Amino acid sequence: MAETGKRKIRLGMVGGGTGAFIGYVHRIASRLDGDYELVAGALSSRPAVAKESGLNIGLDPARTYTSYEQMAEKEAKREDGIEAVAIVTPNNVHFAPAKLFLEAGIHVICDKPLTSTLADARALAAVKPAKGAKFLLTHNYTGYPLVRQAREMIKAGLLGKIRVVQAEYPQDWLAVEPDPGNKQAAWRTDPKRSGAGGAIGDIGTHAYNLLRFVTGLKTDSVSADLQSFVPGRKLDDNVQILMRFRGGARGMLWASQVAVGHENGLKLRVYGEKGSIEWVQADPNQMWYAEFGKPRQLLTRGGSISGVSSPSENVRIPGGHPEGYLEAFATLYSQFAEVIRGNGKPYAGLLPSLADGVEGMEFIMASVTSSKNNGKWTKFSEV
Amino acid sequence: MAETGKRKIRLGMVGGGTGAFIGYVHRIASRLDGDYELVAGALSSRPAVAKESGLNIGLDPARTYTSYEQMAEKEAKREDGIEAVAIVTPNNVHFAPAKLFLEAGIHVICDKPLTSTLADARALAAVKPAKGAKFLLTHNYTGYPLVRQAREMIKAGLLGKIRVVQAEYPQDWLAVEPDPGNKQAAWRTDPKRSGAGGAIGDIGTHAYNLLRFVTGLKTDSVSADLQSFVPGRKLDDNVQILMRFRGGARGMLWASQVAVGHENGLKLRVYGEKGSIEWVQADPNQMWYAEFGKPRQLLTRGGSISGVSSPSENVRIPGGHPEGYLEAFATLYSQFAEVIRGNGKPYAGLLPSLADGVEGMEFIMASVTSSKNNGKWTKFSEV
Amino acid sequence: MAETGKRKIRLGMVGGGTGAFIGYVHRIASRLDGDYELVAGALSSRPAVAKESGLNIGLDPARTYTSYEQMAEKEAKREDGIEAVAIVTPNNVHFAPAKLFLEAGIHVICDKPLTSTLADARALAAVKPAKGAKFLLTHNYTGYPLVRQAREMIKAGLLGKIRVVQAEYPQDWLAVEPDPGNKQAAWRTDPKRSGAGGAIGDIGTHAYNLLRFVTGLKTDSVSADLQSFVPGRKLDDNVQILMRFRGGARGMLWASQVAVGHENGLKLRVYGEKGSIEWVQADPNQMWYAEFGKPRQLLTRGGSISGVSSPSENVRIPGGHPEGYLEAFATLYSQFAEVIRGNGKPYAGLLPSLADGVEGMEFIMASVTSSKNNGKWTKFSEV
Amino acid sequence: MAETGKRKIRLGMVGGGTGAFIGYVHRIASRLDGDYELVAGALSSRPAVAKESGLNIGLDPARTYTSYEQMAEKEAKREDGIEAVAIVTPNNVHFAPAKLFLEAGIHVICDKPLTSTLADARALAAVKPAKGAKFLLTHNYTGYPLVRQAREMIKAGLLGKIRVVQAEYPQDWLAVEPDPGNKQAAWRTDPKRSGAGGAIGDIGTHAYNLLRFVTGLKTDSVSADLQSFVPGRKLDDNVQILMRFRGGARGMLWASQVAVGHENGLKLRVYGEKGSIEWVQADPNQMWYAEFGKPRQLLTRGGSISGVSSPSENVRIPGGHPEGYLEAFATLYSQFAEVIRGNGKPYAGLLPSLADGVEGMEFIMASVTSSKNNGKWTKFSEV
Repeated sequence: MAETGKRKIRLGMVGGGTGAFIGYVHRIASRLDGDYELVAGALSSRPAVAKESGLNIGLDPARTYTSYEQMAEKEAKREDGIEAVAIVTPNNVHFAPAKLFLEAGIHVICDKPLTSTLADARALAAVKPAKGAKFLLTHNYTGYPLVRQAREMIKAGLLGKIRVVQAEYPQDWLAVEPDPGNKQAAWRTDPKRSGAGGAIGDIGTHAYNLLRFVTGLKTDSVSADLQSFVPGRKLDDNVQILMRFRGGARGMLWASQVAVGHENGLKLRVYGEKGSIEWVQADPNQMWYAEFGKPRQLLTRGGSISGVSSPSENVRIPGGHPEGYLEAFATLYSQFAEVIRGNGKPYAGLLPSLADGVEGMEFIMASVTSSKNNGKWTKFSEV
Repeated sequence: MAETGKRKIRLGMVGGGTGAFIGYVHRIASRLDGDYELVAGALSSRPAVAKESGLNIGLDPARTYTSYEQMAEKEAKREDGIEAVAIVTPNNVHFAPAKLFLEAGIHVICDKPLTSTLADARALAAVKPAKGAKFLLTHNYTGYPLVRQAREMIKAGLLGKIRVVQAEYPQDWLAVEPDPGNKQAAWRTDPKRSGAGGAIGDIGTHAYNLLRFVTGLKTDSVSADLQSFVPGRKLDDNVQILMRFRGGARGMLWASQVAVGHENGLKLRVYGEKGSIEWVQADPNQMWYAEFGKPRQLLTRGGSISGVSSPSENVRIPGGHPEGYLEAFATLYSQFAEVIRGNGKPYAGLLPSLADGVEGMEFIMASVTSSKNNGKWTKFSEV
Repeated sequence: MAETGKRKIRLGMVGGGTGAFIGYVHRIASRLDGDYELVAGALSSRPAVAKESGLNIGLDPARTYTSYEQMAEKEAKREDGIEAVAIVTPNNVHFAPAKLFLEAGIHVICDKPLTSTLADARALAAVKPAKGAKFLLTHNYTGYPLVRQAREMIKAGLLGKIRVVQAEYPQDWLAVEPDPGNKQAAWRTDPKRSGAGGAIGDIGTHAYNLLRFVTGLKTDSVSADLQSFVPGRKLDDNVQILMRFRGGARGMLWASQVAVGHENGLKLRVYGEKGSIEWVQADPNQMWYAEFGKPRQLLTRGGSISGVSSPSENVRIPGGHPEGYLEAFATLYSQFAEVIRGNGKPYAGLLPSLADGVEGMEFIMASVTSSKNNGKWTKFSEV
Repeated sequence: MAETGKRKIRLGMVGGGTGAFIGYVHRIASRLDGDYELVAGALSSRPAVAKESGLNIGLDPARTYTSYEQMAEKEAKREDGIEAVAIVTPNNVHFAPAKLFLEAGIHVICDKPLTSTLADARALAAVKPAKGAKFLLTHNYTGYPLVRQAREMIKAGLLGKIRVVQAEYPQDWLAVEPDPGNKQAAWRTDPKRSGAGGAIGDIGTHAYNLLRFVTGLKTDSVSADLQSFVPGRKLDDNVQILMRFRGGARGMLWASQVAVGHENGLKLRVYGEKGSIEWVQADPNQMWYAEFGKPRQLLTRGGSISGVSSPSENVRIPGGHPEGYLEAFATLYSQFAEVIRGNGKPYAGLLPSLADGVEGMEFIMASVTSSKNNGKWTKFSEV
């Protein structure tokens, strides 16, 4: 990542008040490479929380708002008003602010999944952004250098034609009924705020997005079995899916919030006619690569294999000095800053888009539908 | 394992001529703990090969036969005739010799899967053995000490009620069309000798048997997607299965012979309400155990956890001195020797049986049937 | 780490021009938690490089200086002048600017080792800082959460009395003569700029500081064997040291720049009467902990064991979301910011100090001296 | 390993009564490949134990002796008398029976270290064996296929000139005072039976033998620091050694019986100008290989790299089917059988010899001497 020396982009935030997990992550990601300055926030709909949260993160109290509508209106009147906004609210509060800001010509950085309903997602994709406003969906795992290298390796043919994809995303934080005061758990297990998918929306979409990003395979159909293991839970907490891709490849995807012993076990394995890769998010600075008939090789971040490497803009420090989750997140932010500045060409296809967001929602709905139909193979066009 | 000091059991072998993989394994397994003496063989149907193979392994030429029928007949007439027989032929040559020897009162040790058809399996299970002849199916992976410890841990309730089972068995030796001279590959990819299943029969049944042995869960139904990736291959070489167990647990099983980078990657993960285990065959002297909310623990062979350990008869040397595949195989042999000697009580339920063999064939046929029916959930009673 | 919402500290930088590794790291570390604003720099002694480097990182050209003396003088005259300075030059250019700024009442953040000679180190430790100026030595590996947890665990007695310490820091980037244009290699292999130690100064001191930080053991003496394997190299590139600690514990320390296959393999193992820990920098989000007679446990960042955890201020995101090198570095920066603001109490003993820097230089000189004396056991007081 | 079909060699055993660890191991090793038949034993000097032990392992009571002298005498008179003997007693009872049997023309298989004193070792090496009797020292770790492959790789120049060797052998079974009834611990911590070395003799010699076997380096001198951490212990339980090899390579060797968390952690790392290898005994079916500037490769048992593999006689079953400690031990036994049969040529230099045993004792004594002299560099010729 080059330090650009360019003017910082003025950023606002929707959601992310005190105690929020992902809002804090977005703030670090915006700071890490020096491309943004957070200057305004509608951090909470509760005025007292909004105010206190703004103070905690050093916002000018005059620019701490109690609704995104208010923020949009007031900031539009300032010469130094926000140019971009980060939306880090629960899923059901993505659509409205995203639409509002895009139509106001403000660039939007939105957490995933795109929305809480597929209809909203499709509606958002149809919005006409004013003044060339851009959109970024923070499927942050695509920002890891070795994930991008895997994608390049597959594009370059190092694995040959893909046959099998194994994706999994086990966690255990919802293995028992969480404490009622757990904000993170509360909205994620609530269909009103989360949408029709539980584990599948929260983490299944990450696994799906990752496999699509890396392999480039197009999905034909899915056959899903969704479960809610914890008594009283309204949404799925364990998801098992068979996948068929166009061209004949096959896949399995497992996402679980009740897999005791896993913190955040996102893992992707891709097998082609000539080779395979295996990448594990919890240990993101290495990736297994196997060529048929040869010893397996352990690639490390920043290296290259058969001339294929991660785009160099994507690596900050040498191999052996581990980068992690925040750096990958920050990469999306800093490369989106370049898109905003009109220098986005090198990142074409690398930054998760509105279209990716719609496809993620289709994946959720096709899986939910298949599961309701006893595992019937379901195409995205059918939901 | 205690050295018993008892008389060695006289063993014959069907199949296992020069160049055979599994016959050689059975011979080592029979020797390792000193419980058997191999004294006769029908090692090949080709007389010259049978003769040479017998010489290579030190058999008395007078007891090297060219058919199992001949071996059965001649050995029955000797005072020092065989007491047990190991059947290590391709799947389609299991049923007939197993039936013949059981009915002749000779104990049978048979390689898996039990037969090449479900009908044969059920017929074999209906055979009345003479003179109390016993039967052992060499699902050898159940002989690993930590596999047995996992079973004990689950029985003791350390994992709580099981929710999710993830089993996989990837290999890559059939990722390309094998050399025509490869005996191992030839019969395994030939429906006449192997039966209706390819990867599912050869390795899928191992994974299935392992998960059944460890968890004790009863299978409700399976939904399978079987593929043949290598052009011209008649049997499946990649198998993806969703499983439903009685009581509500869910499972996934993946077996593949085209997963580049895997030699023999059998792996089992079991997740319960309170804990989980993870065991990998290629590194069999350790097993992960997680209790919810606590750090993961790496158990080692020969140790105990919460008072639960592997039966001590099952461990030869202390932790840190790795035991492997041959030792696990030998454990089945030596404990079956105790069964033959009438001391089998400690091993009740531990040694794979005819019933396990029939269930393995049901698993194969239910999966094949489901796959033909586009993944329809299929019960074993339906095949 | 809490976001403080407090005013950012105005930071200057000495060294760190375009192409520098560690200067870039310091800049990210200063930004990540939002505690500093880099406003001035003496990035290079070559005016053109200084200018261009300043532009690249977005400095006001008026505050891009060509010497640290000039920066000190000019910034002192500004109302908004720098309050702290980061010194990221080669070792021989640490002493003079550190002394100058401390005496000018500017807080100093200095890269390690402290200086290029022990005399300089001791002289610097004797400096009287003006206006309560503080000093931080960036032994960044002490900023990792699990390193701090290890320290707490040992303090709490979980390992019992320490018996054995095994520290190692293998790299391979100098296994062959580096390209002449490699800036990083050039000064590190030059006694004039690096001082009397090569590998021992560059990485041996990190390993030494880490083991001292974690164990709290006091060093009695060292017996060292230093080698230069690459022909023509003037400084050591491989270091093997036996250590004796007060109270009887023993240690080994290996640091190497020629250990092919290692990128940055810092590793620490500590064995006590009751337990042990093992931590590897390249995989910093986990740490092995063994209690005698029990299975080993794999601790993860953010967790606790027997009630002992890392100070919570030290963890940004939950376990399973890997933090890395930059986060650990940033932790030193942000906690030093709190020291500057007068809130340093929670970090007493956690931030590497001038005294640690002097001890690091003593370690280097005692090792170099011992090696020259054929491994004679050498005390720090003898050098 | 080929099954030879040859007549089994008649074997006697000295030591190895009920409850012995290594005697049991030797018996399995002798059986595994079918090359020996154990027909006689002087298993204990206590008649009742000798008798019971003989029954337990199935010996003819007439060939269960109460002293090795008696066994030698009686067996010499039988037509079917023993041809080889395995000596598995404590160190101080190696020399006398080994001498006796060699001079009687009986092949000797002897556990390590060779003897309890260097004088005995040198005396044994001077013995003239009758009738071409052969000698094998069971440094069993050299029997692992990947250990032998590492040796071949280094011989073939894949690592280039060796620079650094790191060997370690941590255990924790003596971290506390063992139970008085622990036979294994009792003699190993008793100078009368074990000799002048504790950990260094029991496990340090294994590590030393392994590094010599793999690298082929000749030792110049050692500088050692030996400790006894457990109060009252008479022999060392922790050993830290610096090594210098002829030609300039450097090494470190750590052996410990008090390293909590390690069961049997033998590990060898070798670094050359071009490459490195890393092998860990507890996971013996894989080995890291790094070529400078390329990703690390994980070699597996039975494979090859740059045309270099383990001798094929050394591998029983394919990669992915783990072999372990007993198989490596058995390899020494079966290849020594071929030596006895006059077919030993392929194993020249591979089977640990009397000379290796003498060198092992020199290593022990040079280390003990160096430690007494405060780490003075000590040559083997000086002890």
